[in-house]
Amino acid sequence: MKKFINAVENVETEMIQGMCRAYPKIVKKLDCGNVVVRTNKKEGKVALISGGGSGHEPTHGGFVGAGMLDCAVAGAVYTSPTVDMIYEGLKAVATDKGVLMVVKNYTGDVMNFEMAAEMAEGDGIKTAEVVTNDDVAVQDSLYTTGRRGVAGTVFVHKCAGAAAEEGKSLEEVKAVAEKVIANVRTMGVALTPSTIPAAGTPGFELGEDEIEIGIGIHGEPGTHKGKLVSANEIVNTLLDKILADIDFKGEVAVLINGGGGSPLMELYIVNNAVRDRLEKEGIKVYKNYVGNYMTSIDMCGCSITLLKVDDELKKYLDAPADTVAWKE
Amino acid sequence: MKKFINAVENVETEMIQGMCRAYPKIVKKLDCGNVVVRTNKKEGKVALISGGGSGHEPTHGGFVGAGMLDCAVAGAVYTSPTVDMIYEGLKAVATDKGVLMVVKNYTGDVMNFEMAAEMAEGDGIKTAEVVTNDDVAVQDSLYTTGRRGVAGTVFVHKCAGAAAEEGKSLEEVKAVAEKVIANVRTMGVALTPSTIPAAGTPGFELGEDEIEIGIGIHGEPGTHKGKLVSANEIVNTLLDKILADIDFKGEVAVLINGGGGSPLMELYIVNNAVRDRLEKEGIKVYKNYVGNYMTSIDMCGCSITLLKVDDELKKYLDAPADTVAWKE
Repeated sequence: MKKFINAVENVETEMIQGMCRAYPKIVKKLDCGNVVVRTNKKEGKVALISGGGSGHEPTHGGFVGAGMLDCAVAGAVYTSPTVDMIYEGLKAVATDKGVLMVVKNYTGDVMNFEMAAEMAEGDGIKTAEVVTNDDVAVQDSLYTTGRRGVAGTVFVHKCAGAAAEEGKSLEEVKAVAEKVIANVRTMGVALTPSTIPAAGTPGFELGEDEIEIGIGIHGEPGTHKGKLVSANEIVNTLLDKILADIDFKGEVAVLINGGGGSPLMELYIVNNAVRDRLEKEGIKVYKNYVGNYMTSIDMCGCSITLLKVDDELKKYLDAPADTVAWKE
Repeated sequence: MKKFINAVENVETEMIQGMCRAYPKIVKKLDCGNVVVRTNKKEGKVALISGGGSGHEPTHGGFVGAGMLDCAVAGAVYTSPTVDMIYEGLKAVATDKGVLMVVKNYTGDVMNFEMAAEMAEGDGIKTAEVVTNDDVAVQDSLYTTGRRGVAGTVFVHKCAGAAAEEGKSLEEVKAVAEKVIANVRTMGVALTPSTIPAAGTPGFELGEDEIEIGIGIHGEPGTHKGKLVSANEIVNTLLDKILADIDFKGEVAVLINGGGGSPLMELYIVNNAVRDRLEKEGIKVYKNYVGNYMTSIDMCGCSITLLKVDDELKKYLDAPADTVAWKE
């Protein structure tokens, strides 16, 4: 394992400190643990909280800031955050208007967020929850019953975050989040596995000309192993499944998300292929993002996300955002 | 070689198309080749042009846009752009106030930009040139006489770009660029080599626990190979050399730049170590950027850049920018 680290047990804390020290006007770390909140708490709006295991940077802390999340709770790498930490986050950002929890569909995440919410409700904090499940690859998986929540979650942060910033009620912000969840689909592929620092070796094996189609963001198996083919062919395989899942005719936002180890050079090539295919399908692209949004540590790979947009979601995508990883 | 590509000969073009199709409000590609310009040309200001080999994404095209570059010319991977292409770029963005060329110090780049400038001058286009040479690692190198221009170049784009946007004259914008060049220093390190698509195999070899200290952005040798040690030790090795080069006492901007294959997780850990050391040195950090700014394809590695700032440079760093890879 060749990584810039000091001690495997400090990876999460040093990383979050390193981010918060870089962008102190946007984010700060709570003393109680790896909980990132906005430097300047905004009252009078619904607060948004998300989180999950570390290893997906810039998710989640990179999306904390005006127009997106109010709080991100980071567990150990690929591990759900503890109930206590989520509870601390809920208390830190709660406002009179309540807190919306945006949780990716992993059994541990959902359980811990819900337990923390119960504790917060006991303190009089109003909470609501949405669970993202945008991954079309597989139905159940290693850590999940039902579909996994993956990169499409970032669109939930953006749109629900914008709705909250506008002053909408908890029910209204939740409805925006649910609208995104209903209209967003993702599928990923790995060229190489990721290496968890504490493990020291790759999480699974792939041959020299082998790829994993439908990979999860923790290296969970996808639908099958395939041969390394051209970018165009890989893109078509992923898009075939995404496009078959819901009717995307009309306008979409496109997110090409990097696995962490794949350079922008390749992500742009993937995007070019995606745009070719969507053009052929008669699907118009309203917005298009390419980069590392929800990584799998150092995995070479990517995912494609399509979000079907209407005027309301377009407005929320265009709304101002000032976070470490998304500025609009 | 496991990469998302279609054909090695199309990598540069498909990549630039993929970027321009994603961000059509900011950048467009000229029909004549891999020349990226602002979608909306701004008259009445000094134009800024840069470029070099591909493989450093988001450099250079990612910094084209309001407040930074007007044009970026991309050669083949790790190869200087041709004189013709640079000439096309110069003609496309020239204004009455002239064009400043920001060239990284590589023999081929400098030669080709200067030949293109001569052709443009023949057309009555006023040009000026600055050459960046921020790499403190080695004096001469594989493709360079004198020090190499590396990630610190991005600060030249930002500050000179802001000065140009303000309406300053060619001489004044050049002076801002030269001020940045005089005050910026960088040093890099590689954990793994990069793989040029057309070559298909890594550009050099590193053992399992070996790193290259002082690596260039094309995989050129640095000062020496070292043992893989802790992030703190690596950071101190790089900072020792950077801090010894000019007097950084006072305030600095810090850029932790990823090699392309190193995830944000590690870059944040590096940043945390850099901030610890600068704190110990009594050097105050005005701004701090962490991410992939000038990569080496898929190299695992990073560089540390320090820019000594005064009120003028702070103002230019803070000025608005709207590019693919830098928004301020």
